[in-house]
Formats: sequence, C-alpha cells, structure tokens
Amino acid sequence: MAVIVAKFGGTSVADIERIENAAGKIVKEVEAGNKVAVVVSAMSGVTNRLVGYCTEISPMHDVREYDTVVSSGEQITAGLMAMALQKRGITARSWLGWQIPIKTNNVHGKARIEDIDTAEINKRLEAGEVVVVPGFQGVTAQNRISTLGRGGSDTSAVAVAAALEADRCDIYTDVDGVYTADPRIAPKARKLNKISYEEMLELASLGSKVLQTRSVEMGAKSGVPIQVLSSFGEFIGSDRKGTLVTKEEDIVEQELVSGIAHQKDESKITVIGVEDVPGVAAKLFKPLAAAAINVDMIVQNISQDGLTDMTFTVPRTDLERAKKVLKDDVTLNYQDIAVNENVAKISVVGIGMKSHAGVANTMFQTLADKGINIEVISTSEIKISVLIEEDYTELAVRSLHAAYGLED
Amino acid sequence: MAVIVAKFGGTSVADIERIENAAGKIVKEVEAGNKVAVVVSAMSGVTNRLVGYCTEISPMHDVREYDTVVSSGEQITAGLMAMALQKRGITARSWLGWQIPIKTNNVHGKARIEDIDTAEINKRLEAGEVVVVPGFQGVTAQNRISTLGRGGSDTSAVAVAAALEADRCDIYTDVDGVYTADPRIAPKARKLNKISYEEMLELASLGSKVLQTRSVEMGAKSGVPIQVLSSFGEFIGSDRKGTLVTKEEDIVEQELVSGIAHQKDESKITVIGVEDVPGVAAKLFKPLAAAAINVDMIVQNISQDGLTDMTFTVPRTDLERAKKVLKDDVTLNYQDIAVNENVAKISVVGIGMKSHAGVANTMFQTLADKGINIEVISTSEIKISVLIEEDYTELAVRSLHAAYGLED
Repeated sequence: MAVIVAKFGGTSVADIERIENAAGKIVKEVEAGNKVAVVVSAMSGVTNRLVGYCTEISPMHDVREYDTVVSSGEQITAGLMAMALQKRGITARSWLGWQIPIKTNNVHGKARIEDIDTAEINKRLEAGEVVVVPGFQGVTAQNRISTLGRGGSDTSAVAVAAALEADRCDIYTDVDGVYTADPRIAPKARKLNKISYEEMLELASLGSKVLQTRSVEMGAKSGVPIQVLSSFGEFIGSDRKGTLVTKEEDIVEQELVSGIAHQKDESKITVIGVEDVPGVAAKLFKPLAAAAINVDMIVQNISQDGLTDMTFTVPRTDLERAKKVLKDDVTLNYQDIAVNENVAKISVVGIGMKSHAGVANTMFQTLADKGINIEVISTSEIKISVLIEEDYTELAVRSLHAAYGLED
Repeated sequence: MAVIVAKFGGTSVADIERIENAAGKIVKEVEAGNKVAVVVSAMSGVTNRLVGYCTEISPMHDVREYDTVVSSGEQITAGLMAMALQKRGITARSWLGWQIPIKTNNVHGKARIEDIDTAEINKRLEAGEVVVVPGFQGVTAQNRISTLGRGGSDTSAVAVAAALEADRCDIYTDVDGVYTADPRIAPKARKLNKISYEEMLELASLGSKVLQTRSVEMGAKSGVPIQVLSSFGEFIGSDRKGTLVTKEEDIVEQELVSGIAHQKDESKITVIGVEDVPGVAAKLFKPLAAAAINVDMIVQNISQDGLTDMTFTVPRTDLERAKKVLKDDVTLNYQDIAVNENVAKISVVGIGMKSHAGVANTMFQTLADKGINIEVISTSEIKISVLIEEDYTELAVRSLHAAYGLED
C-alpha cells in the first residue's frame, strides 16, 4: 500500500466534466489499495480573471489582499473535487491551507512553505479518506492566506508529498511526460521513462514548462519521485506510463544526453568597449537587476587595450527596457551597444555529460555541418547552451536530436 | 464619532466599477469621523455560478463542501473592497469568517451565528482602520467554513453590528428604502423614514424582499437600527436618506398603517369533508411539512355533520407536489380537493393597528367597493392578510394604499 499525492493542473480541472474525470482516476488509485492526497489547481481561466480584478482596481494592489482574492480559485476546485469523489463512494474532504495548516513565510504573492502539519491529514489517510488540498496556498504566522506564486500548485503537491513521506507525487497535466525534445519541432522525439531532478531542473528553467522549477528543487531535496503524466488518457499514476523525475542513482540506464531544449524570443545585447576593471560587471548588471530584467547567458570577451565587450541575453519583451536602462546609466562608460533581436537558445542536457568527453564537440560539429553560426556558448556540469539565429531553431533541435541518438 | 456597519449587496458590488463606487461611500463615512466595518456580498451572479457547479456534480452534494465552494464569492469581494479602500488612502483589511472568527453552529448551508469575537476588529476600528468582512460566512467549532443560507449577508451585517454595539447598520441595496407599497404597482407610494422591526418582519416575510427576515429578527433582538438605502445615489448612510428600521418606541409619529404588501403566485387548496376530530390538522400538514412544502394561511371551516373543510395556501411552484402528497396519503380521509391556482395575498401592516379599531373594516369595505371577493382572511396583531383573485392584485393594492391615506 503506497501513499500517493496526485496533482491536477488547471486544464485537468477546467470544467465539471474534467473534475469528474480526475476524480475517476483517484477512485482507481484508491481501489488499487493506495492512500491518496489530491492537490488541485484553480479551474483554468479562474486565476487570470481574479488577477485581472485586482489589477483593474490598482496595479499596485496590496499583495496580502491579492492572496485572499486569488487563493479562492483553488478553494473552489478543492470543494468540487471532494464532492466528485464522494459521489463515487469515496470518503473525501477538502483541507484548505489554513485548515491543515500549510505554514508559509509572509512574503505574500510568492511565499515559501516552511512547515506542513501532517497530523490530521495523516490520520485521515490512515482511516482510508482521500484528502483534497488546494494548491498554491498556505497561511502565514499572522493567520493570513498566502500564495506561492504562479504555478505554485506543483510546489504545493511536492511539498505535501515530502511532508507525508509519500511514495510518489503524480503531476497530471496536458502532456503525457517529458520528451527528449519538443515533439512539435522534432517529430521523432521520445518520451523519457525517467529523468534526474538535475536534468529536469535544467529543462524546467530552459523553457520546457512541464514542471515549476521550485517543485523540482523540492523533489530533489526531499527525494520524492515526481511523475509527469497526462490526465486525459485511460491511465492512472500507478500504471507508470508517464515520466518519473527521480534521483540520479535510481536511473539505471543513464543516457549521455537526455534532451534538447530550446527557448525562442531571446535577445542578445553586446556592450562594446567597457573598461576592463574589477567591478565593471557589477556596475553593468546592477541597474538591470534593479529594473527586474532577467539577464541570462553572460559572456565577457578577452580584453584589448584595457577595454572589453560584455555580451548577455534578455527576454525579447525586456529588450527595450534593458536598452533604456543602459543608456540612462551615467556611471557606466562604454563605446557602443550592439543588439541582435532574433536569437534562440538551444541546450543539450544530460547527466552523462559529467563523465563523458566529446558531448560539446558533437554539438558544435552538428551545428557547423548545418551551417548554423554559434553566437554565444555557456556551459554547466550537465548542460551546454548555445545562442543561434532564431530562424534556425527547428533545424538545430532536429539535427542535435538525431546526432545524440535520441530518436525513436 | 459613531460606529457604523455598512453592507453592500450583490448588485452593489457587481463589478469593479461598483466596488469602487461603494468604496467611495465608505471613504465619506470615514471622513465624517465614523468608525466603519464593511460587510460585502458576492459579486452578483458569482454565487449562482458556484451553486451551479455543485449541483452539476450532484444535486445531493455534501453541504460542508458546498460551503467551502460558495463562501469563496464573498471572500473575493472582501479582498477587492479592501484594495479599493487602500487605493483611496484608507487603511483597510479583509477579515474572513475564520479569521475573526465568526463562530456558527455546524448546520452547514444554513448555519446560525453563535458568537463573534470582536477583540481584534474592535482594536483595528479603534486604530482608524476599516474592517472588511465577507458576508454569508462563518466557521464551525470543527474549523470548517459554514454559510448562513441565501441572503445571509444581511444577517452577517446585523450580527457584526450587534457584536460591535454599532450605532447603525446601513444596508446598501438597489432600492432606496422601504415603501408604503410596491411603487411599480402604486405610483403614489411613499418612502418611509422609519418603520418598526415588527412591521418590517411582516413585510419581509410577505414578499417585500428588501431585507432578509433573520437580519430583522436579529436587529429587533439586539436593538441595532438598520437603515435600508440605495448604493447608487450620491448619499451615504450618515445622510439618513433611507428607511430606518428601528424600535417601535423610537418612532414618534406612528402611522396607523405603514404599508400594503402583496404576494402573487400563491395557490389555494381546500380539502373538503375531513373528519373534525382532534389531530386531523396534524395529520393533514405533517406529510406536507415532510415534503418541505411551505404552507401559509390556514383556515378551518365550521364543522357540519362531524365533517369540516380545511383551506390553506402554498406557493404555486409547490402546488402539484402538494396535491400529490395529499393524494398519496393513505392515512387521511376526505371527500374532495378543490384548488384555486391563481390567488394573491394582500396584507395591510401597521403597528398602529394594535390600538385602533376599524382597520380591518376599512380593508374589507375598500375591497368590497371595488367588487373584489375575499377568499380567505387571516390576521395577526399588526397585520391583516386576505386572499383574492390574482388578477385584482394591482387594483387592491392601489385602492388600499389610498384608503389608508398612504399617498404622497
């Protein structure tokens, strides 16, 4: 008998029919002899509507009241899910963040979970009840509702699973697992059976928006296996048809490269001829950080005549703001700014890289063979990322996918 | 400096613009030097949508989960109202039922308020903060959200006012007060400046759906004056432009008759030839009560030959069910059932009736002069109700309104 946390995202509970479908899966898990805690998102569209109300009143609204308003979306789904389970003969009950309680710090709008009191919900699970928990929400020490930030329901699910020492956390979503590349671009992409937390973290932060980054971090820390699977097929989590995100040592057949990720809509900025003195990087990036502009790949060129060039990427939506911040900065001396608005980041991710040479070379050679120019390179222990012209994104992903032997 | 509770109904907070309008009224009350607690309903339409979800899952849904779902409507408005007040420079905060707490019994779906802990909200009012409370909701001893039944926000408002020993409870709604008759029927109807709790109770239960009955009962018990006023004019509660529902002794110029109420869509059932023995009324009405059919005016005829006729009214929507219940009842002996489907109840309400003779006679004479036949009569200390053919409703109301000198 296993303890399982099953989380259903917004599209999986978008209307009553889908809530009923999700409830049907939980019934099968219970009938298979498992103890189940369910974590639910808001019905899709609801959170956006509620956020819209808050913004309509004031873009600078009080984030404590924002939390009170938007947390209601998950509250509604939790009650409805409990009803749908009861209708199927399952004893079920909703447990709101403040009822469990799920204690968070008081950084409203993007709170972090500090502690989950499992006494009562564990007792209920022991008694054969299904416990339904609204994702995304908790309660502060001041007894006010807090929320974890957009996508926070994944984090809620993994946190509840960790607190319950669950055997598995199933994330039901609108894709049926994690793929070696985006199947819309690489039709021969394969679904992975297993992937390590570390690889998933790189993929999550690289635009494969399957799992929220913090939930993967929490999984890695707690060691709870996370399964990504579709809520629309016939299968339930215990059929193990999705992708399991787990510890590196639990993956017997480690692949050299697990997947090819891509991220479009990037822009490259090169600040030409800045003084090559200690502190210049800090001087350059501090005003960008202050403007909440998310700077990604950073490369510094070799110095010539005491001057150097600094290149970095920003999301295309932040490009104009970033240029303005740099132009308005009176403390920074430079000769010019060069911009390439249409670049994409292509990344090769794999735990196997740690112990194998030649992975980077395969990437560079493959792209060169296709005549694709590399503008920037950055690497980590388990990832190599390159910046290329956006037009070549699909060609690059497909070529690399084949080159690393990831095809069906 | 007065303590005022201001309650805004669903149409008064139907969208962000109206929430902002309501917030503007609160600002004026605060600027006038008052301490204000605001009680809000759900935005109009929201509760119906949430109830619809519950019913779609199952008409027999768990009412505890129903409370978790539907209470979110008021929670949303409370957060938005707090934001709208803050935007106007007012320190404001939402306080949900479980945060105050507003303790109720555990009759979910139609809970009764047992206690309101005013320690914290009183402290906030003292500090000049505006306290925003979602209506309709409380929390049980089991720490679960409860709701007070449809229209319960009026009750919440008066209960909060009673607990705070407020000087007045303003009910902002889509009418500007209580009228001597429905102005759509009697164009010369006047808005009353004051009316007693007892008269308002009779009017509330007679189809003048301005205030929820329980809120008036609570007002009478606690002695908090309740003002009914429009949320759409320029005025605020302290301008005293609405109708004040208050103690009889506070009404200096008592009128003989305060108003003419009417209720359409009634049906009359006469059970002919039942045995006139002790217990027959109980035998007749018990199965109707068991079927949750709301029986109103009851009249028993003089007995002849040991047999009598029993006449009573039911809402027209319950007529078919009531007939079926009577026909299916094997314990009850009667000769026949006669039905008049199209009747209306017309009532004359007034505290002055207690000490004045002739009020009933004026009613009967007025109706007779217009050729309107009275089918059933029932009276209380401050009310006379008659049943007439529904087609004569408007004529009866207008004639009585004039006969009692209620015109402008």
